Parts: sequence; C-alpha cells; structure tokens
Amino acid sequence: MKKINFDHISANPLLPEVKEAMIDAINRDYHNPSSQHLAGEQAAEAIEQARQMVAALINAEAPKEIVFTSGGTESVNHAIKGVALANSEKGKHIVTSNIEHNAVIRSLRRLKSAGFRVTSLPVDHSGRVDPRDVAEAITDETILVSIMHSNNETGTIQPIEDIARITRQKKVIFHTDAVDSTGIVPIDVRELGVDLLSMAANTFYGPSGVGGLYIRRGTKVFPLLDGGVQENNKRAGTENLIGIIGMGRAAEIAKRDLAERLTHLKRLKDKFIDELPEYIDEYIINSHAQFSLPNLVSISIRYIEGESVLLMLDDDGLAVSTRSACATGSLRASHVLLSLGLSHEDAQGTLVISFGVDNTEEDVTMLLQSLKQVVTTLRDISPLYKKSSGAN
Amino acid sequence: MKKINFDHISANPLLPEVKEAMIDAINRDYHNPSSQHLAGEQAAEAIEQARQMVAALINAEAPKEIVFTSGGTESVNHAIKGVALANSEKGKHIVTSNIEHNAVIRSLRRLKSAGFRVTSLPVDHSGRVDPRDVAEAITDETILVSIMHSNNETGTIQPIEDIARITRQKKVIFHTDAVDSTGIVPIDVRELGVDLLSMAANTFYGPSGVGGLYIRRGTKVFPLLDGGVQENNKRAGTENLIGIIGMGRAAEIAKRDLAERLTHLKRLKDKFIDELPEYIDEYIINSHAQFSLPNLVSISIRYIEGESVLLMLDDDGLAVSTRSACATGSLRASHVLLSLGLSHEDAQGTLVISFGVDNTEEDVTMLLQSLKQVVTTLRDISPLYKKSSGAN
Repeated sequence: MKKINFDHISANPLLPEVKEAMIDAINRDYHNPSSQHLAGEQAAEAIEQARQMVAALINAEAPKEIVFTSGGTESVNHAIKGVALANSEKGKHIVTSNIEHNAVIRSLRRLKSAGFRVTSLPVDHSGRVDPRDVAEAITDETILVSIMHSNNETGTIQPIEDIARITRQKKVIFHTDAVDSTGIVPIDVRELGVDLLSMAANTFYGPSGVGGLYIRRGTKVFPLLDGGVQENNKRAGTENLIGIIGMGRAAEIAKRDLAERLTHLKRLKDKFIDELPEYIDEYIINSHAQFSLPNLVSISIRYIEGESVLLMLDDDGLAVSTRSACATGSLRASHVLLSLGLSHEDAQGTLVISFGVDNTEEDVTMLLQSLKQVVTTLRDISPLYKKSSGAN
Repeated sequence: MKKINFDHISANPLLPEVKEAMIDAINRDYHNPSSQHLAGEQAAEAIEQARQMVAALINAEAPKEIVFTSGGTESVNHAIKGVALANSEKGKHIVTSNIEHNAVIRSLRRLKSAGFRVTSLPVDHSGRVDPRDVAEAITDETILVSIMHSNNETGTIQPIEDIARITRQKKVIFHTDAVDSTGIVPIDVRELGVDLLSMAANTFYGPSGVGGLYIRRGTKVFPLLDGGVQENNKRAGTENLIGIIGMGRAAEIAKRDLAERLTHLKRLKDKFIDELPEYIDEYIINSHAQFSLPNLVSISIRYIEGESVLLMLDDDGLAVSTRSACATGSLRASHVLLSLGLSHEDAQGTLVISFGVDNTEEDVTMLLQSLKQVVTTLRDISPLYKKSSGAN
C-alpha cells in the first residue's frame, strides 16, 4: 500500500540534496571544529558556510547572529530563559499568548517558579493576538514578549510586525517562535523587527534535532548551555556537525525554492478546503482564511473523535495528526483549540492536515475520498451524531 | 602526505559500522517518533533500541535511566542545573573539584550568580581528589557533588567509587562527568554508585553533537529543556534521530570491543611513554601512572611552547592538541595543569597526545621521530632553554 504523509508538521522528509550533503559529511571524517589543526579548520569552515545559508534564509544582518541548537525546543528555551536571566535586574515580567507551543509555556512555567510573572494574552476567534493587548500588557517591569509566528496546530500567523513596532518603542525584547514558519513562508528578521527568532531545520526538509536561534546583535541573553567557547560563546558544546551541514543545505534550497513551494503547497491546501464540502459536512475550519501557513489546515469534524479518524486513515496508508506531536501522550484537549472558543467536543474531532513538497493533487483527492468513508463510518456509530440528527 | 590523528580527545573518527547505520537511517525517511501513526512508531522503536545499547554499555538498571542529549555539555548542564533547581529547597551548596571541564565550571558559575554556594576541592600532584576532602566539604546544605570521572587534559581517573560511598551515606546526589571515559574504560554505573553520569557519543566513535545523561531512577532533577513529553518527560524536543541511531550503534560496538580496544590503546600509550626518553629529555608526564585513561598522555616539554610544537607537527601531518578543544580561543594557561602544581612556563609547553583505534605502532614511531626534530628545532631558538643550559 502506498503511504502518503499529510503530517508534515510532525516530520518532513529529508530532501535528496540534504541526504547527499549529510552522507558526504559522514564520509569526510571531519575533525572537531574547535581543534587547533588543519583538520579542525575544515570542520569549522563547513559550519560557517551552513551559518551563512541560515542567515540568508531569514535575512539576518550577519551570520554571527545565528546560533545552532539541538532544535526548536532548545532555541525557545535558550531565548526565553536566557533573556529572563540576563535581564532580571531590570524586571521580572514577561508577556506571551495563550496559544504558544509547550516549549514556550513550560519554559515560562519554570521561570514562574523562580519568581517571574507572566501575562498570557487571549486570541480572538480567528486565533490571532491583538497587538493593542500587547501594548497594554507591557509594564516598566516587562523584559520580554514571546509570541509565536505561526501556530503549529492551526497554522494561523500572528501580526508579528505590528507587535514588534510596540516592543521596539517600549524597549522590550521580542522573541518569536517561528519553528513552523521558517522555510515555509518568507521570514525576514529585519522586516519583522524581532530580536530573537527560533527555528528548526526539519521544517524546511532538514534533519530533526538541529535548529537555530537568531539573536539580533546587541540583544542581552545568557547561554542555556554553559561550557566551551563554541558558537561565538553563545552556546557551548561540540557541534552536531553532520546535522548542521544538513541544515545549511536545507536552508540554501529553501531560500532558492521558497516561492515555488509556496505556490505548490497553497494549491494543495486550497484544493482540500475548496473540495471538502463535496465529501463531508458539519466541520469547522480552525485555520485563518488569510493569515495562515500555506501547508496546514486544521479542521474539527463534528460528532466524531479525531483519534479514531487518524487510526482509520493510517489503515488506509494516510498519515495525519490530531495535534502537535510534542503533545502526544497528553490526553487533554488542545489548549490552542479551546483558546479559539471551540467546545471540548469539537476540539476532540480535530484533524491537522499538513502538506509537503512531496504531496500531489492526486494525494489530496485520495485523502478526501478516504476521509469521506471514515467520517461516514464513524458517524454511523456516533451517539452524538444520532442525537444531533434526531434533534433536527 | 599521510595525516595521522593523535587528537582523538577532540574528535574520534566515526566507525564504519556507525557510518553505515547513520546513512541507513538517513535513507529510511523515518517519521517523528512522537507522531501517532505507524511511520512514527518505527522511529520511536529505533530510539528505544539505541537507548538499550547505551544502557547496556554502562550497565544501567533500565534503559529509561538514559536520556539522549545534544552532547556531553548538555548532559553536564542538565545534571548540574537540573539537580540544583530541583533540590534548592533542601540547600544551595555544591561540591566540585578544581580540575573540572568548563561545562561543569561554567554551569556552577551560573548557579553561583543565582545564590548557590560552591566548594571546589584541590587535587594532589598526581591530579586526584582526596575522597576525605569530599566528606569534609559536605554540609547539611549540600545537595550535589560533581566530580569528573577522568580529566580531558591529563586522562587521570578519579576515585569515583570511594566518593560515591560517601555521597550515598550522606544522602547527597552525585554526578560524574564521564564524557572522556565512557566507551574507553569499563563504566558500570551500579558499581560506581553514581546518581548521574554524563557521556558523549563521539568518545566511543559515534557522532559529535549527541550524548547521554544517565539518571538513576528516583534522582530528583529538573529538565534543562522544557516543552514536549519526549525522553520520558526528562528532555523536551524532537529527537536527533540520525545521531541517536549512530550513538546506539557505537555503544553496541564499544561494549563488544572494549577489552580489545583497551589492550590496543594501552600498548600504543605504553610504547610512547617507554620510548620517549630515547627521543627527548626534560619533560614532565602529567598523566597518572596507574589511574588514567589508556588513550591519553599529557606531557609538558620544558623550555618550549606547546602551540609551536602543535603547529610544526601539523606541518608533518600529525594532529595533536595542547589542551581541551573546548578551551581553544582562551589564551590563559590551563587551570587543570596549574592545579597539578605546574609552573606557567611548564604548562605552556604541554602537549596532549590521544590515541585511537585507528592508530598503529608505526604511527607512534613517526610521532616520536617528528617530535624529536620539532623539539630540537624549537629549543635551538628558545631563550629559556639557552638560559637553563647555560646555568648548568
């Protein structure tokens, strides 16, 4: 059976060019980039090349503003805890939103137990933060605003530039978790006006377990990993050379192919959304119609359980997701969906469909067909659906 | 020109079997281990297999006691900061030694600025901590002892079992930085009696940028990376799957070949030390004669600069080190060597020679010959040497 991946938000396949670059790196027997002899210098050069590619992808002013990390989660932890600890003498107040990724939420929870105060802003029914709320929440004690660029469960994109205008004026450091955006939509840190930006290589078809943190020059932030002098003294530890080389290559290709990918992904997403009414009814689209990732749709299908849909689609060789892979193992309804105003029941019926460069229009048709069958089967046995139908 | 690596402490080459396992992993298109469908389960299984191999290498009671990290530095930061933050209500005092790696030193420095107190114990001229000093340093406020297993600049091994007997009796958590020992000498966490042990895959010919932290069941330690529920809730973040698979394979081979490797490395090291007097004079061996790594010798060659020796050997295709790769970029004399009682001058003339499974006895002879030439050349132009000779 053909396997089709519609869960790209959990994992993107490595691009052939990325595989090639990583395999080449494995076979090159690089030495430690920090060692003092020739074999070490070649490794250091390979890392600097990758850093240039990543810097170019987000239009950083200098490659030095990029720190390689072990992924999006480390980048977020580094940004939030690093800013908090480095600026605690100025104040201990942080502003965030109700729909952040667990890496943000739990980093902030850790800081709360160390005496920091956190204001968490609501989103409207479309899933967006109101920049005026950010302005109002900032006090003299505020040292950091952390608002995600796009949400990993709904794909909704936040008004980052508007928020940055406020944080700059109020001289507060601004971090955005752009893990699900970087390499998918154009990201220009200078236009966005953010001070820190978290990203992950796998979002743009690089390896998992490697990421980057953009730190605008002059931003006061402590390292999360203390030790050696690697990464311009911003992140200690011998580098994941093979992963970094893979990330560099993936960034280079992402920059080159961004426009083309956008068009392709948007076409698949539009096809899915446009044709969906022909296949099923009674569902809610949780992704913003205008401000959202081109590769992700979140739909809540009423009267059934998303988990059951997922399992039955998996039997058909189709991989989708019900929520963030990072939240798997937690049985509670998604805090993101509840923040949008969804009921618990509707939240339980949510599917996250995320497209990739490897998907075709035929794949989308297969998904729609499979979805129709699965939904029909599940609704036939759903007491909720019967009750609702009976009430009509 | 043939390149010979005698700087294995900075970087070990990947074993052919490790390369193969990583390349295979790259080509398998694994999905996210945390995702809910079949393709994710296969990735999760690959990680659990690797975890079993690493657990077996150090004889952990359960694979669950192993947390995969981004390397030795993260493991050390996680252990030290994680224990400190999780146990600060009991006390804020930590005991360590004067010769720890920068990851330990700087993690502790970070904690000091957060109100923790640190007692740093001296070592004797042979480079070892006296367990009685540990016993004396522990107070009712002590929550953690962190003493390295072997030193990365001298190879000297500490009396970890004796120290563990004390920490257990006094109910203080004991972490050992075994980054340079694990996979090189037998490590049995149950015999050692430690609560936490840091390791890095590259030490046993796995990839750089991936490591492990052994956390004995029941040890109170907070995560360093907060976010998702990966690694049994002990370390958030999508896993570096390819690196972890490489580490698992390297651990499996390390366990299988440990005795054979020990014999081989010890033979090379003994040959170097035994024959060295035939080639040069006036040097000090900083490695302990009995308690030291089989793959590392630290020598301080008097009247010359280690840096110059390194550069001239590099011209001959021979890679050595003058000190920890992590301390490159720092011009100060090594805190480890000064702790042994070496003068600044002698510390400057130090070379770290570290052997690997890829080295042969012929390689050692080449190194000895090259070293003789280089030392003769440098001493000919050394004012220190002339003064000393003149004084004789």
